[in-house]
Amino acid sequence: MNNFDFCSPTYFVFGKDRENETGVYVKKYNGTKVLLHYGGGSVIKTGLLDRVKSSLSKEGIGYVELGGAAPNPRSGLVYEGIKLCKEENVDFILAVGGGSVIDSSKAIAAGVLYDGDFWDFYSGKAALMNALPVGTVLTIAAAGSEGSGDTVITHEDGMLKRGAGGDCLRPKFSILNPALTQTVSTYQTACGATDIIAHVFERYFTNTTEVEVTDRLCESIILTMIKETPRVISNPDNYDARANIMWAGMVAHNNIVGVGRTQDWNSHGIEHELSALYDCAHGAGLAVIMPAWMKYVMKHDIMRFCQMATRIFGCEMNFAQPEVTALEGINRFKQFLSSIGMPTSFRELGAKADDIDYLVDTFGIGDGKTGGFVQLAKEDIRAIYEIAANE
Amino acid sequence: MNNFDFCSPTYFVFGKDRENETGVYVKKYNGTKVLLHYGGGSVIKTGLLDRVKSSLSKEGIGYVELGGAAPNPRSGLVYEGIKLCKEENVDFILAVGGGSVIDSSKAIAAGVLYDGDFWDFYSGKAALMNALPVGTVLTIAAAGSEGSGDTVITHEDGMLKRGAGGDCLRPKFSILNPALTQTVSTYQTACGATDIIAHVFERYFTNTTEVEVTDRLCESIILTMIKETPRVISNPDNYDARANIMWAGMVAHNNIVGVGRTQDWNSHGIEHELSALYDCAHGAGLAVIMPAWMKYVMKHDIMRFCQMATRIFGCEMNFAQPEVTALEGINRFKQFLSSIGMPTSFRELGAKADDIDYLVDTFGIGDGKTGGFVQLAKEDIRAIYEIAANE
Repeated sequence: MNNFDFCSPTYFVFGKDRENETGVYVKKYNGTKVLLHYGGGSVIKTGLLDRVKSSLSKEGIGYVELGGAAPNPRSGLVYEGIKLCKEENVDFILAVGGGSVIDSSKAIAAGVLYDGDFWDFYSGKAALMNALPVGTVLTIAAAGSEGSGDTVITHEDGMLKRGAGGDCLRPKFSILNPALTQTVSTYQTACGATDIIAHVFERYFTNTTEVEVTDRLCESIILTMIKETPRVISNPDNYDARANIMWAGMVAHNNIVGVGRTQDWNSHGIEHELSALYDCAHGAGLAVIMPAWMKYVMKHDIMRFCQMATRIFGCEMNFAQPEVTALEGINRFKQFLSSIGMPTSFRELGAKADDIDYLVDTFGIGDGKTGGFVQLAKEDIRAIYEIAANE
Repeated sequence: MNNFDFCSPTYFVFGKDRENETGVYVKKYNGTKVLLHYGGGSVIKTGLLDRVKSSLSKEGIGYVELGGAAPNPRSGLVYEGIKLCKEENVDFILAVGGGSVIDSSKAIAAGVLYDGDFWDFYSGKAALMNALPVGTVLTIAAAGSEGSGDTVITHEDGMLKRGAGGDCLRPKFSILNPALTQTVSTYQTACGATDIIAHVFERYFTNTTEVEVTDRLCESIILTMIKETPRVISNPDNYDARANIMWAGMVAHNNIVGVGRTQDWNSHGIEHELSALYDCAHGAGLAVIMPAWMKYVMKHDIMRFCQMATRIFGCEMNFAQPEVTALEGINRFKQFLSSIGMPTSFRELGAKADDIDYLVDTFGIGDGKTGGFVQLAKEDIRAIYEIAANE
């Protein structure tokens, strides 16, 4: 196990009706004037936004509003939010929505306290050291942004999708009411579940040895997702299944299951090009890329894939031919993704093999390599897209 | 799943040599004058205390010392610590040691800011709302106090062993260097491992339904302990096994594996009377009590014990006679405890059946009942001691 630091100071407020306490928590973390940031009409339609506003007013907290955050959130709205916060002397950013709204809120929170262009944090020109406090009222279990210090934004100039992160971006509080996720469509729920599973697998595949505790924690989250996701797909009103998924989604990405080990975020990176080009759901893109990535890198550590196959997917170990077990685990993962309605091929996603040259180019590693488990060059990335295209 | 709040804001500093950063973290959390609290001579003998002092001095942080905290830490030293802190204007309590030192430090931290008798928090006369900041340099994986808001103290007037807790007692930072635990004896290491496992089981046995995510997280920690503990027993210098155990010990008790479900701490309570009377190690007492408690309450929820037996202890499910599987799980748990050198009976612990009347009386529930999984009355407590006495 490697040395590590870990701090997840977010105050989690979990359960039915708890969004009605939003104002109490904004006050607790010294917010007096809030930017209320959200996405499209669903938080208005369901009455959630009104409940949150009432809760703020009850505590005497003022607010200004900024709606319009979309999936794969963009820089334009971030610039608008930063300007608004400065004009209105906002001292707290409240995200009401899913990962996109939260990521956009974090970008605004970082930008308000920075004299330069907020994009500097995403392009690697500046380190994130300071941000306005952020709170969240979560409406979809997926990104894990409610418990992480990470944010991903797409810059409209060139449609570059880039991430940034820092402990200062960990939300002060996050309100998780599983009932709020009951209005999320079956397809988006499955996309979210796939994203949660991916956050664990990107940590699970490691070259760090002697990490039984985090291996087991990773497996516990995926086993939970395998049990609970189909229950929600068949009955979207299943509160308890949604509750298990919602907490799993936080645990999957606040890094408690990933400390002390190298990680490998190539599946996320390779997927980002798909969702940037086709504007598909991130989770759907991951369902296509992850199994392809696994097949391509499997030989690097057959025994780790056997561990996944036996501990997570219930395969019998084939001691004479371990690679058979490893491959069976990957295939069972694909079957699981299909069973919850996810695409697992270019064809099902609506992606085109003809675009592979473009995808590889925009992945943009030039002659370099990337990856914490298996170092991939441009041609490896191409090969993974091709596996997904030939499924 | 039940509604819950969860916040574990402690900053964890994990890995080799990291105690040399102690001063940096005391400074980060605004400590200027420290009470350096520790136990017996081992932290002096190993040079740890000197390294911590150098680290404080390097950052220009002053300190006063208070040694002498013993297992099952007592009120006398707490009163002494509170007095010393007030005289010396201490603003930060630094625990260098195991759970006993940390619990004693927390009691001092709470007492310094309280006008009354610190014991009010333990006797239930006052609620814990405020305490001096506490930091820890952990030397044994066991109590989980490094990540929890809990503390247990024994009052010398009547030898009452009582707990108190509050989020204000969660350490600001905890430094976990697994190498520091390499000097812990094999027996004490096994006692610590048993305590860690108990912290999970006390959360695992619940009447709350639909808690797959926390069930799985609980199981992941115990599976880790089952793999790693024997490795440390056979080779005390195994850093990596100790690292896995040390992190498991924190995760087992900061409550991330116990949120949203009722818990049952009767095994801890029933054990406390043993360690109070015989001054035995808490973990050794738990090894005697837990299997006895399990056998006594098994019939309350055979299927939960079957889940434990199959998922944790690798038993085959006996579908015709589930109670056979449930009992086999408990027996395998006992075998595991024996294999790491733990006593699993009164005889092996050195406890006497003749003392059962006294133990039941001091447990002190009168005509009441206690327990979150199975409500136990006085006669049930007696029956559990008798099972342990007849093993």
